Amino acid sequence: MPKKWKTLDTKQIFGNKFFGFREDKVLSPKTDNTHPVWVVDAPTWINIIPITKEQKVIMTKQYRFGSQEVSLETPGGMVDAGEDALSAAIRELKEETGYGSDEVHEIGKISPNPALMSNDTYIYVAYNVEKIGDQQLDNMEDIEVLEIDLDKIPNLITNGEIDHSLVISAFYLLDQFEK
Amino acid sequence: MPKKWKTLDTKQIFGNKFFGFREDKVLSPKTDNTHPVWVVDAPTWINIIPITKEQKVIMTKQYRFGSQEVSLETPGGMVDAGEDALSAAIRELKEETGYGSDEVHEIGKISPNPALMSNDTYIYVAYNVEKIGDQQLDNMEDIEVLEIDLDKIPNLITNGEIDHSLVISAFYLLDQFEK
Repeated sequence: MPKKWKTLDTKQIFGNKFFGFREDKVLSPKTDNTHPVWVVDAPTWINIIPITKEQKVIMTKQYRFGSQEVSLETPGGMVDAGEDALSAAIRELKEETGYGSDEVHEIGKISPNPALMSNDTYIYVAYNVEKIGDQQLDNMEDIEVLEIDLDKIPNLITNGEIDHSLVISAFYLLDQFEK
Repeated sequence: MPKKWKTLDTKQIFGNKFFGFREDKVLSPKTDNTHPVWVVDAPTWINIIPITKEQKVIMTKQYRFGSQEVSLETPGGMVDAGEDALSAAIRELKEETGYGSDEVHEIGKISPNPALMSNDTYIYVAYNVEKIGDQQLDNMEDIEVLEIDLDKIPNLITNGEIDHSLVISAFYLLDQFEK
């Protein structure tokens, strides 16, 4: 079993409220050598699969600054300071889509990228979802809301229209949860 | 349908051979305001699910600097300069595990995180995998190789022992590929 490495030093390279970037000096337990490694810090994230009584998934389409493409996703975002992950999921669902639910379950906790990122993402499913109000978007957000048949999701993933790894992982966990 | 934003300027904050970090100035087509956004650049990544004739998955355990935990994963890594993604997948499989295959299929192309990262990850499955040599590790790598029954994977994901979003996404794509 590979051992944990010791972190000897850490140096912040960049930081804001969304994420930070640091260089750590780590000690290999195998070779006793030290190496620099780079880590992206971010708050805990959440992602939620909202499903209506009619087995439609409420999804979002928005321009993403990393891929520089419009991306089809389930609602998600970051947990605010002092907020718990479940509340963040319900809040993001409401803000991004205007939908709400009376039945939300946590279906997993995953790592966006254990090699590079320090944070976790909690995954939720919401059932009996229905429109309860308007979207509440900040001026960075321009989000289209779509209702997509749940049974069309596998095709949308295999043909690459849904390609976000956190969203695909959420649907894996949903399949297992519903088994 | 949300429109693409225009990138007006870009400023490199950090860069090495594994990834870069930049601040872009972007123009909202909705509000005509400009905003700073932050993007992690990385080379194309690959991930490969190696399966033996006996329906065992060849997996790796290694310490990860982001999560600061030992992580159970399928082999993966980055595509080197001048290399194609398929060759990178076969190379990483051999280097990390010492295993090889006579039958490799691409089963998807996903985005690690379109909000934050600019790169893609190609996903492969390798069948008829068998030991063909020794691991070839660099002095940053300390990798344990495990053979895990394919039918145990869903449980390992739902109980959180496999929690890497790229790996979970790979198994989603494998399920669809084998349907």
